[in-house]
Amino acid sequence: MKKIINNPEDIVDQMLDGLVKANKDKIIRIEDTNVIARKDTPVEGKVGLISGGGSGHEPAHAGFVGRGMLDCAVAGDVFTSPTPDQVLEAIKKADSGKGVFMVIKNYQGDVMNFEMAKEMAEMEDIEVEYVIVNDDIVVENKEDRRGVAGTVFVHKTLGAMAENGASLAEIKKAADAIVEDIKSIGMATKPCTNPSDGKESFELAENELEMGIGIHGEEGIQKEEMKSADEIVKEMVDRLLEEVKDLDSEYALLINGMGATPEMELYVISNSLHDYLEEKKVKVVRSYIGNFMTSMDMAGFSITLYKVDEDRLKLLDQEVDIVRK
Amino acid sequence: MKKIINNPEDIVDQMLDGLVKANKDKIIRIEDTNVIARKDTPVEGKVGLISGGGSGHEPAHAGFVGRGMLDCAVAGDVFTSPTPDQVLEAIKKADSGKGVFMVIKNYQGDVMNFEMAKEMAEMEDIEVEYVIVNDDIVVENKEDRRGVAGTVFVHKTLGAMAENGASLAEIKKAADAIVEDIKSIGMATKPCTNPSDGKESFELAENELEMGIGIHGEEGIQKEEMKSADEIVKEMVDRLLEEVKDLDSEYALLINGMGATPEMELYVISNSLHDYLEEKKVKVVRSYIGNFMTSMDMAGFSITLYKVDEDRLKLLDQEVDIVRK
Repeated sequence: MKKIINNPEDIVDQMLDGLVKANKDKIIRIEDTNVIARKDTPVEGKVGLISGGGSGHEPAHAGFVGRGMLDCAVAGDVFTSPTPDQVLEAIKKADSGKGVFMVIKNYQGDVMNFEMAKEMAEMEDIEVEYVIVNDDIVVENKEDRRGVAGTVFVHKTLGAMAENGASLAEIKKAADAIVEDIKSIGMATKPCTNPSDGKESFELAENELEMGIGIHGEEGIQKEEMKSADEIVKEMVDRLLEEVKDLDSEYALLINGMGATPEMELYVISNSLHDYLEEKKVKVVRSYIGNFMTSMDMAGFSITLYKVDEDRLKLLDQEVDIVRK
Repeated sequence: MKKIINNPEDIVDQMLDGLVKANKDKIIRIEDTNVIARKDTPVEGKVGLISGGGSGHEPAHAGFVGRGMLDCAVAGDVFTSPTPDQVLEAIKKADSGKGVFMVIKNYQGDVMNFEMAKEMAEMEDIEVEYVIVNDDIVVENKEDRRGVAGTVFVHKTLGAMAENGASLAEIKKAADAIVEDIKSIGMATKPCTNPSDGKESFELAENELEMGIGIHGEEGIQKEEMKSADEIVKEMVDRLLEEVKDLDSEYALLINGMGATPEMELYVISNSLHDYLEEKKVKVVRSYIGNFMTSMDMAGFSITLYKVDEDRLKLLDQEVDIVRK
């Protein structure tokens, strides 16, 4: 394992500090926590929006802290849920009196710890609501579906709503509808490497790809012989279209690199993807390409389709001032 | 070699199309060329700003096309200079009558082909000026110094000037001064892979790093035993400070991923870097972290220091609307 770090124990601490040192005008780290907060949080009259989860998904989540997106991001250890007391710190920081909304990815530990933090906050008279994102379609049982890159669409849409003065109840209502309309699927050509033991998260032969991976290095649903971008995209879109059936609506598209995927390849993927979605009569009105929700040094990508209407598009297009450049 | 592409011959063509299909509102590809142009170019009364070079450095250069940065980007084949006639197309497209300025990285092929295009354009009565960026300090002979990630600072600064109505002569004068004030150094933990033959650009053992690499997979100045982020950063900064001697001025810092470097590591590097620069009394007033000028699937990073004053800072901070998200 070759990682440019100091030692595995200090990664989360040092990466949070590194992010803050590069963005002193925008964010702070709440002392003795792994919580990154927008510098001007709590914003008077605004619902606080927080998210978080294990580390290893950078720029998620701290990279999305800033005006128009998150008030706070809570980082756990690598691929490990943040503790309830850390989430509580984020809630307390983000609350201006209008309540706090939490965007949680559907993992047992995250859900449990964020829910516990909500209870603790309510004992301190802070109103808290949340939504659980479960956009990963490869998990058959809908209740077990994981939250992956589509979560960033949730941050963006709700972040703009909160900035515009929406109430906690309005955000909760929008959030419940939004998560139904976001579907993702991912693949990898290379697993990620655990920084503490240097082990790869799964085995993959030189001529193989892994279809349906998770963002914590979870093995996919099957190994396949390596194939062309066109063929990979076709398979992933066909799987997505088993879930995305409304072809009258418009969609926003996210092409997300898993961490070690060159942008050159993401653009080639974009070409295959736009062509095949057009052939399938999926109306794509916005496209985003880049690293948004990664899995450390995993190579591969995910595709997310988000059903949008005029309101959601306006919120997606609304200006932000966040850490991620 | 595992690359998510269709075939090596079509990479440049398909990646340019993929970028355009995802950004139809902002950019076009000039028919039968590898030139990506801002949709509203030429902009009335504005000097045209163009750049380009071999492909494989994405998001450079096409990702920087848009309001406030480049009017056109010309892409050559992978790690190969664009031909003079392609550069000429970009010049012709970008000219609104106020002339065109070219940002060229210091490689023999690029310099020769952009200069030839300038001559061809002048025969068509288009005024053309240029600057040659040579920020890579590891090359001893100053005339041979390569243009690397610092080039993006040149695009940003001159792009803002052009947008604000600066004349060709004003841009030329500023550009000549700017390139003197930008210094970079890069390192790699993994070479890049040539898409056409699958060969790695240099050999590197599991416990080694390559110090002083170029962005075309060029081998560095020496191999070293793999060491900590703190130690790597210290060595690179010490080398930079042999050139950057003015500690009264302020600097903008670019921490650039080489293509396959996880953002987690870039943040850890940022932490080491800000600490060490502070120890060395280098005043950093802006920091940018991400993939700006890559070398396909190379893992590693580069550090760029750009001496700034109030004017340059304003230009750096000026809003852009470019393809890169």
